[in-house]
Amino acid sequence: MAGVAVILSGCGVYDGAEINEAVLTLLAIEEAGASYQCFAPDIEQHHVINHLTGEEMGPARNVLVEAARIARGNIKPVDQLFASDFDAVIVPGGFGAAKNLSDFAFKGADCRLEAHTEKALRAFADAGKPMGFVCIAPAMIPRLFSQPVSLTIGTDAETAGAINAMGGEHVNCPVESFVVDEKHKVVSTPAYMLAGSVLEAATGIRAAVKAVLGLC
Amino acid sequence: MAGVAVILSGCGVYDGAEINEAVLTLLAIEEAGASYQCFAPDIEQHHVINHLTGEEMGPARNVLVEAARIARGNIKPVDQLFASDFDAVIVPGGFGAAKNLSDFAFKGADCRLEAHTEKALRAFADAGKPMGFVCIAPAMIPRLFSQPVSLTIGTDAETAGAINAMGGEHVNCPVESFVVDEKHKVVSTPAYMLAGSVLEAATGIRAAVKAVLGLC
Repeated sequence: MAGVAVILSGCGVYDGAEINEAVLTLLAIEEAGASYQCFAPDIEQHHVINHLTGEEMGPARNVLVEAARIARGNIKPVDQLFASDFDAVIVPGGFGAAKNLSDFAFKGADCRLEAHTEKALRAFADAGKPMGFVCIAPAMIPRLFSQPVSLTIGTDAETAGAINAMGGEHVNCPVESFVVDEKHKVVSTPAYMLAGSVLEAATGIRAAVKAVLGLC
Repeated sequence: MAGVAVILSGCGVYDGAEINEAVLTLLAIEEAGASYQCFAPDIEQHHVINHLTGEEMGPARNVLVEAARIARGNIKPVDQLFASDFDAVIVPGGFGAAKNLSDFAFKGADCRLEAHTEKALRAFADAGKPMGFVCIAPAMIPRLFSQPVSLTIGTDAETAGAINAMGGEHVNCPVESFVVDEKHKVVSTPAYMLAGSVLEAATGIRAAVKAVLGLC
């Protein structure tokens, strides 16, 4: 049975991991006959957003502690994620991928990745193990490879432009599909960059997870 | 298209709505061709649990504000839920159903329901509209009907005993199945009272949601 590491970025679309995407990723992994282990960086969230009003609120929350809500407590710090222990890695989206796992939401093409997350992901890239990225998480891909990698965040031109400026090769893609870079074994799907329903997000995520596992 | 009200109790298995159950319920509703609107009571959570350590932490959180994380902000206070606007109602589980929507976790057979949640659910019961309850949420059912209703929370004898003491008729049920009380149009499924995986929870929830919609 293939083992997949899943890196979460908190718990909630506006300041953490998009919850539907995270759960649908875990479901798709099990549906495909594989197993998963969740990870998250043990750092403070960039900020906390009241998801009812959209406004910032206090006090600070920890990414690992909040991501543990999605994982029902079964989660480890991302500095304990070693590529040698898994067959693949998948990163669900949500603003947490662009605010906690990286600072892409604030710095665009000048973004950096969170140090422990970058180290873990680079190890998968260096080992040639398959990687999946959902929603806005593909914006992290150009920072992991020295060569251009084909990827998608859907159809948003401004975001695609920033990704291309970082050395990515953005490809427009509909919500129910995915883009695969066979050479680098990287799969990406738009999910809630485009999805209008849970079912739309589920369709693309299920297809992308199958593609990741097909590269194992 | 059938419209289903979904009542959430926070965001996280130990102090709110079980996140997998909530998302799988929303997915199953859409898979069955129906639509949903989420609701939650605008009250303080009974307490906040650190899902990494299992220990209580501060400060207080609001059930509606946290449930909005699952609903991506598209959620209303449960005092704005009127049975006349929907064809059915479903309550996912998690300790929030027994700590925020009721106090069953603390008072067992002597429990009471949160006032606005009780009013909303009673209106569905009185109108003879189908109702679904997941995981521990079925413990609320006896408080909504004057006659015994067949229901399940899986196989836990102590919990079943407390439910029977309240006037329920507990029936043991495996995780992939559900119990239906045709007369009262009430469906229940064990989900994470028994589930060992997201896939197991998904199977039972999908079947139960179909059964609820079949009673519309």
